[in-house]
Amino acid sequence: MQRQPAAAFLIIGNEILSGRTQDANLAYLGGKVQAHGISLREARVIPDIPDSIVAAVNELRHRHDYVFTSGGIGPTHDDITARWIAEAFGRPFVRNAEAERRLLDYYDADKVNPARMSMADMPEGVELIDNPVSIAPGFRLENVYVLAGVPKIFQAMVDGLVPGLAGGTPIVSQALTLFCPEGDLAERLGTLESAHPGMDVGSYPFFRQGRFGTTVVARSQDGDAVEAAMAILRRHAETAGIETASYDAQGRDFQTEENR
Amino acid sequence: MQRQPAAAFLIIGNEILSGRTQDANLAYLGGKVQAHGISLREARVIPDIPDSIVAAVNELRHRHDYVFTSGGIGPTHDDITARWIAEAFGRPFVRNAEAERRLLDYYDADKVNPARMSMADMPEGVELIDNPVSIAPGFRLENVYVLAGVPKIFQAMVDGLVPGLAGGTPIVSQALTLFCPEGDLAERLGTLESAHPGMDVGSYPFFRQGRFGTTVVARSQDGDAVEAAMAILRRHAETAGIETASYDAQGRDFQTEENR
Repeated sequence: MQRQPAAAFLIIGNEILSGRTQDANLAYLGGKVQAHGISLREARVIPDIPDSIVAAVNELRHRHDYVFTSGGIGPTHDDITARWIAEAFGRPFVRNAEAERRLLDYYDADKVNPARMSMADMPEGVELIDNPVSIAPGFRLENVYVLAGVPKIFQAMVDGLVPGLAGGTPIVSQALTLFCPEGDLAERLGTLESAHPGMDVGSYPFFRQGRFGTTVVARSQDGDAVEAAMAILRRHAETAGIETASYDAQGRDFQTEENR
Repeated sequence: MQRQPAAAFLIIGNEILSGRTQDANLAYLGGKVQAHGISLREARVIPDIPDSIVAAVNELRHRHDYVFTSGGIGPTHDDITARWIAEAFGRPFVRNAEAERRLLDYYDADKVNPARMSMADMPEGVELIDNPVSIAPGFRLENVYVLAGVPKIFQAMVDGLVPGLAGGTPIVSQALTLFCPEGDLAERLGTLESAHPGMDVGSYPFFRQGRFGTTVVARSQDGDAVEAAMAILRRHAETAGIETASYDAQGRDFQTEENR
């Protein structure tokens, strides 16, 4: 199996930990980098606290090829990400001339204020990341990509960014839903995975509209192996008289259900 | 400010990192423990990989009063959480007699198989955590609480568990939405927070149905301070002619939006 670059995602924001806001960015980023052949190895959610940001950024950037962050780069007092990323790298925290120019171009004169212009303050020597939604850019510093937290902006930044990153052979995945409890399939799935080295077989039970079911997802860099595994599973369902349903690879068919 | 017990949440599952499944448990747990006076300090998402589980559990359990995990305790080959938590604690991994009894009581004889019964295999010496939805229990080992990943089961376990934990003075929070861009409020919000020590003022911009807005959330153990801060903000909105809307404390009014 060809090595894929490894990535981590750092979600910065009290509101995610307090349960007030449901994060939507992890699932988006995970799907996008996977399709590009980058393996998302871990995600962390931390509060808007300087020491937490510095420690997490420094730990993750040395351990992974890419680190993406979301949150804390807006205009208010609780937007402290950029400053503490500068600290993590031991770089000066300065007004970025190009970011300043973009903000001044974008805002009407009566909307320009110190808080908004503070969105141009960044670590020295960064590369800007375009924000096609509301202009204020993110930035890259070495292997750390600092992105906005608002999902619409985050997604636009990811869409612009990921295609330009070095990736490996993408993972191919296929899913099949069988309307039977997970415990009926367990032995067969274990055999299926061990028969196909390098393939990951996931099993996601659900109970919905009065019916038990299990979505099985096979993932591998070897598309033929995935195809073969799914064919075996489909034949088993036919033989055993289990109703099935197919979904596309990224098909988040049962969004709120997950592996128990 | 009275010290609150600190907690971490460890989400175990490839499907969350690949973007296939949207995690729903963090927001639920975050809200529940906050209301009980426990501070959720970090969350991590890791894959179903033995070394990742052992390392994360051992790091987090020494750093926090409580660690909650979700995922990987079902009957299939990819459910490896219990085994590697035993490893993290250096405990034998054994059949739990009480868990076995519950499973045998619950399943019809023709549904009993080795895969299902493996859900009774746990580290030695645990305390069971009830599963009112589908019987197979979670467990507690010292300060680590091992819960199911399926949201319905996870939530039932959390509901049964959290009221019995030692908590501190709960955080009181109030939210007010102002229909104006975040950059118009930034300076005022900074002042508001610094005028109330121990209070956390969060600012969450959104763009919805053609309108810019900002939800401001004030959080503190001192309910009077929260009340006072919100009154100042409401007066400001009136004076400046900014339309407002109120939501309850846990009101996840703009679920998919978050701090940029």
